[in-house]
Formats: sequence, structure tokens, C-alpha cells
Amino acid sequence: MRSDVSAPTVIALLTDFGTSDPYVGIMKGVILGLCPTAQIVDVCHEVPPHDVLAGVLMLRGAYRYFPSGTVFVAVVDPGVGSARRAIAAEADGRTFVCPDNGLLSGVAKETSIVRAIELTNSEYFLPRVSRTFHGRDIFAPVAAHVATGTKLDVLGPEIDDLVTIPLSEAVRTADGWEARVIYIDSFGNAITDLREDAVRDTDVRQLRLSVAGTTIVGLSESYAAVREGEPVALVGSWGYVEIGIRDGSAAERLRVRRGDAVTVSSRRVEALE
Amino acid sequence: MRSDVSAPTVIALLTDFGTSDPYVGIMKGVILGLCPTAQIVDVCHEVPPHDVLAGVLMLRGAYRYFPSGTVFVAVVDPGVGSARRAIAAEADGRTFVCPDNGLLSGVAKETSIVRAIELTNSEYFLPRVSRTFHGRDIFAPVAAHVATGTKLDVLGPEIDDLVTIPLSEAVRTADGWEARVIYIDSFGNAITDLREDAVRDTDVRQLRLSVAGTTIVGLSESYAAVREGEPVALVGSWGYVEIGIRDGSAAERLRVRRGDAVTVSSRRVEALE
Amino acid sequence: MRSDVSAPTVIALLTDFGTSDPYVGIMKGVILGLCPTAQIVDVCHEVPPHDVLAGVLMLRGAYRYFPSGTVFVAVVDPGVGSARRAIAAEADGRTFVCPDNGLLSGVAKETSIVRAIELTNSEYFLPRVSRTFHGRDIFAPVAAHVATGTKLDVLGPEIDDLVTIPLSEAVRTADGWEARVIYIDSFGNAITDLREDAVRDTDVRQLRLSVAGTTIVGLSESYAAVREGEPVALVGSWGYVEIGIRDGSAAERLRVRRGDAVTVSSRRVEALE
Repeated sequence: MRSDVSAPTVIALLTDFGTSDPYVGIMKGVILGLCPTAQIVDVCHEVPPHDVLAGVLMLRGAYRYFPSGTVFVAVVDPGVGSARRAIAAEADGRTFVCPDNGLLSGVAKETSIVRAIELTNSEYFLPRVSRTFHGRDIFAPVAAHVATGTKLDVLGPEIDDLVTIPLSEAVRTADGWEARVIYIDSFGNAITDLREDAVRDTDVRQLRLSVAGTTIVGLSESYAAVREGEPVALVGSWGYVEIGIRDGSAAERLRVRRGDAVTVSSRRVEALE
Repeated sequence: MRSDVSAPTVIALLTDFGTSDPYVGIMKGVILGLCPTAQIVDVCHEVPPHDVLAGVLMLRGAYRYFPSGTVFVAVVDPGVGSARRAIAAEADGRTFVCPDNGLLSGVAKETSIVRAIELTNSEYFLPRVSRTFHGRDIFAPVAAHVATGTKLDVLGPEIDDLVTIPLSEAVRTADGWEARVIYIDSFGNAITDLREDAVRDTDVRQLRLSVAGTTIVGLSESYAAVREGEPVALVGSWGYVEIGIRDGSAAERLRVRRGDAVTVSSRRVEALE
Repeated sequence: MRSDVSAPTVIALLTDFGTSDPYVGIMKGVILGLCPTAQIVDVCHEVPPHDVLAGVLMLRGAYRYFPSGTVFVAVVDPGVGSARRAIAAEADGRTFVCPDNGLLSGVAKETSIVRAIELTNSEYFLPRVSRTFHGRDIFAPVAAHVATGTKLDVLGPEIDDLVTIPLSEAVRTADGWEARVIYIDSFGNAITDLREDAVRDTDVRQLRLSVAGTTIVGLSESYAAVREGEPVALVGSWGYVEIGIRDGSAAERLRVRRGDAVTVSSRRVEALE
């Protein structure tokens, strides 16, 4: 999308640091010291603490909406200070800088990782590296260097054994899918692992979704398709089937939780009676 | 204020998306893909979910502090996916991009809407428009296009019937005003709908304000004018009379809530006894 | 770090305004009206309301990671509207704009304040100054002017009697230190006032730390050095000894609170039995 050669590079941050400490601000200070013109964007800093899987899903849902050339810094890093590697990877025209703990598993499912590097060249780190805050000391400065044109190959040796974590995916059954709630957003919408394209050839008005004791018939086109307070299932903005309540929280009212099973049946309703 | 022709355009975002999901970050990614030099500013993302009126008040209180030329994207959008229109409007040298659900009612009370357009030209949207996330698919890209110089008239037909929602306003009574608490900020200060200019010709030391069973005599000049823990009424930074507690939360200690009546009397105190 | 003459100036904001009101956004609007190319960064806006000391610690922990030339705006200002002065100060190549209530006490301990100015020249304020929101009306516009090249000496008279607040510091004892928990971060890590360099010449594996009824033996190198759920003491990213729990919150599990005493003994463990 960007033809302007001198356009500032986007550095997009995803962490579990929250916003009540100065940690994220400090990372931005480090970045701007090295790349003064960076366009720094917060993807999200409220990944639940140490919840790598939530980080995986957010990164998967977000990355493609950022311009080609974006450098992502993703830090959900329970293993900071241990032997886990620090990496930079290239995929789909973007660069990802993060700990090697599976954070890129979602991106890797959507597109191929073109190249991955272990970050070993400490010339691109802060002069002094702590054992507890690699976001500040390693990931932020490396991202800033990449944003100013540093090539990945000077950052360390290429590797081909990235850690991955398995991602839940709806399983085809005789008459539908066994799906799972993988994410609950702050509106209380429950996003499942049933992809949009899986249901594309189905008569979605006939689908029956059962979750946490509630059954919803048919996928709607939007929340506004049902009456206020009513449950609704639809293909949401994440590209997955999600369950919501018009003007309310499905998580609260239907008591849906992350990990809950969602049984999806495409048998015609008549056939059930 | 801005004379520098090449100054980056400010795109200011106001939503009810919160910050615990990547939704706002995704909107920023979309904007920067289309307008790489934008100065993106968060006005606020913690409008209570679906609370259009709170969005109206925040936008009214904030817009004039942003430079001329700012493009606001306001998304509090319970009707997303329904027939509600998407609009762009010009007022006071700024542009506002939002759903047509009354969000501009506050701005329209302060200044005149010069022009309003229904956003129908999908060339300026993302290629694929979801039914649940117009912030990403319509409002963000339209704002980015406007920021890069796209004129409103190519975005769709002009309209003159914007949805408005009535805004509470203090009512003159025989000896004062019947006002209402319209907003409670995070410090617990209760902002009323009694405008600064309404009380300008009054001897404010004589005013008696009664709210939730507490009576406060006189408008003070600042929170520091009373002792710690004491209630105080003053003309606040919103340009309205507000009720606070020095170094404390009026909402908590006085149990004031949004919507509460505030009786303001300018009768001399002596006359009451 | 910045050699590029035309690099945009960083304006870094630290406040207790939270993010649920448009207050911070309004300050940014004001800044961009006066300095359109500013790189605005949030250090943190969740300083607990009116907790100047917490602001002091965050500023002390963060400032050196921002590039030389950064203009900090720090607003934790319970005395807004009172006689407290508004100031700008220069230290370590950065400028700090804030109320004169001790906010710079931490910076002043790390480096020397080169110059301090009382902000009296209202030409650099917004045309109309409220009594309740100097962040918007004084501090933001002054910072923007400084970022565009305005020299401190035109802003007001030099002063040499900045308000300072005493900072807790671990006290040397016969066999160790009497320290104190000064900050609890959002991960639940308890940061003490025992500086890294104080323990540098000690055999840290021999240190015994007692806090809130728990004793921890030895400083570890990272959280990952202990088993999940176990307490750990280490030199953290703030440059101070801190107490944490691997993959958990020390604040919750050990019931540690800000202000708690931490007794640190360097007597050999054998000697105690």
C-alpha cells in the first residue's frame, strides 16, 4: 500500500505488560532513540500476563491489517532470562521480533515464515542487557534497528526450528463441527476456532450452535439482526464464527468461557424432530 | 495554529473498543497503510460500551483542542451492520467520520455542521467490508483518505438529516437552575449540564448546589480552595459546573451518579433562614 | 543517540489521568496544534490518582531510556489551582515540565538539575487558563513550545528552591540492609529501595530476604531460575532488588504491599543455625 519511499516505518507493539507501569513507554523511548521517525503503534498491551496463546491469536488477527514493512515487537515472555531464544522472523513482508516461545504460531499458520534468525549479535541490543526485561534491552532496540534498515542476517544465525504451539481448530464431524471458544473479547463476544471458509458452502441459516447450554439457530449477518439481549452467531471480524449478544455480553449472560466446546450441526432443523 | 503546509494530519480516534483487544491497533494499522505520515492520537477508547451519549459528551469536550484540519474517527456503534448510515461531516475546520447515530450532536450544538456526506463510495473502504467492524473496514480507511487530501464530495451524497440525540441542559428556575449530572470522570468528579456562561453574571459565592443529599455553598475557584476530603463545586475544565471532593472521589463519597438532579439556587443564603 | 538534526522531538507524558476520560487525548491535541511533528509517547497515565511519589519513581525509572532532547510532561497535581508553582527543568539533556510538588525528586537523585524555571510567562500557555486542568492549559503548550525550540529562559525566572520529597532508601545494618517495598508493578513484582550497586560486592547467593513473613535465600538471575509458583528475589529492570513469583503475583501470593519492610541479611546461612 505504501509507495512513498520515505514513509516512516511502523513499529507495532504487542505485550502483556499492561499500561499501569512505565514498561511500554520505556520500550518506546528506546525505539525513538534509535529510530526517531518510527510510527509506533500499540496493537495491544493487555494480553493476559504470560498467556502466550492469547498473544498468538491477537497477532494472527491483527498483522495483516498493518502495512507491508511493519516491524512487530511481540513480548509475552514468561521465560525471560531462561535459555529460550530471542528471534526475528520475516513473513508476508513484515518482520516479527519476539521470544521464541511459539508467539508466531498463528502467523505461521496463515502465511509462511520466509526466514527466522536467532538474535545473538549484541551490538544491536542495549549496551547492558538485564535478565528480566528483554522487551527494553533486546526486542525494542533490534526492532528499531530493523526499522532503520538493518538486515536480519547481521542479527544472528538463521534457524529453522522455531518453537510452535498447537492451535485449536474446529474438527469436522458427521453433520457439522466440534469447535471451541478460543478468545473472549472485551464486549463479551466469544470467538470460536471455526473458520469462515469452513462454513462457506453450508446453508448457514440451518446451522445449530450449542455452547454452554444455549442453542442458537443460524448464522446472522450482524449483531443488529437480532433483538436486543438476544444471542446471535455470526462470522465476526476475526474471520471466525463468533457468538455474541446484541447490546450485551455473551460471556456474562450465556456464561461462555474460553475453552468451552461449541457443537455446530448443519443437520436440517426438521430432521431433528 | 498550523502554518506548516507539510505538517502531518492528525487523526484522532474515539471509540468504545477498550484497550484489551487489538481492535484499535488494527484501525491504526489500516490508517497507516493509507496515510503513512498521519499523527494518530487516541482521544479515548473507554467510552462505556454502546454508550453513544458518553461519546457525544467526550467529543464535544475534546474536539476544539485539536488542531484545525484534524480528522476525527468516532466509533460507538451499537447499530453496526444495520441500516444506520456511515457519515463524514465537516465542522469548525475539522472532519468527523462516524456512524450516523447522533455522535455529532454535541459538536453540532457548539458549532455548525458545514457539510455532511453519507459514505457510500466503497472505493474508499477496505476491499472487503465486514458486518461487525466498520471501524476497521469503513471509518479508518475513509479517515486516512481524507487525511491524504480526498475531498468529502467524492465519498458519497450530501445529506441534511443527520440523526441527533437530545442533550440535557440545565433549566432556568425562579431562583436558579435545575441541572443534571451528565458525566462522571475517573477522578469521581461529577460534571453537570450547567454551562459556565449561564452562571457568569451570578454572584457565584451565593450559589447553593444540592445533589444526592449534599448541599454545597458557593462555586470555588479550584479543588485546592477547600480542605482535603471536602466537597466543592466549581466551573471545571469541561466548561460546565462540576462537583468534586478535594483529593477524593465525589462519585464515591457523595454517592453521586450520572443522571442525578442538581438543584442550584442563587437565592441569598440569608433569605433562606 | 540522535544525530539527525531534523528528527522530531519526543514529548513524553506521565500523568495520573487514567485513560477512561479524554484528558490525555486533549493534551495531545494541544501539543500537536503547536508542534505538529512531535513524537508523543505515553510513559504511563495510571499513576494512582494524586500519588506524587509513584510518579516520582516512574519518572526516575523511565527518563534515561528516552532520547536526549526529550521533553517530559509530568502531571500528578493534587494542588492544581493552588499557589504551587508550575516549572520547567533541565537535567541530563532532557527537559521536564510539571508542577513544583516534588515530582522531579527521583530524577534529581540520579542526575543534577541543571536549571529550573518557574513558568510565569503566559504567552506560552493556552489563551485561557482554567484552575483545574493545567495539563491542558499550561504544561502541554509549554512542552510543545520547548519542543519547537523555545528556550527555557523566556518562560519565566530561574529558581533554585524546587520542592523535593524524601525518597526511601535501604539502610545499611550490621549484617545487611533494612529495605522497603516502594512500588508494586502490574505483574505483582515488589520493587524495593535496595539499589543494585549496594549489593554488588556481596555474595548474593548468601543473602536472606524476609518480607511479609516469607524468607527468600539468595538473589537469582531471573524469574526463570526458580520453579513455577516459587518466590524469587533478584535485581530487576528498575535497577533495584525486587521480589517476585515465577509466573505469578508476589503481591497476591506473599501478601506484600507497598511500604512493607524487607530485612536483608548477608550473614552466612550456616551462621544462623
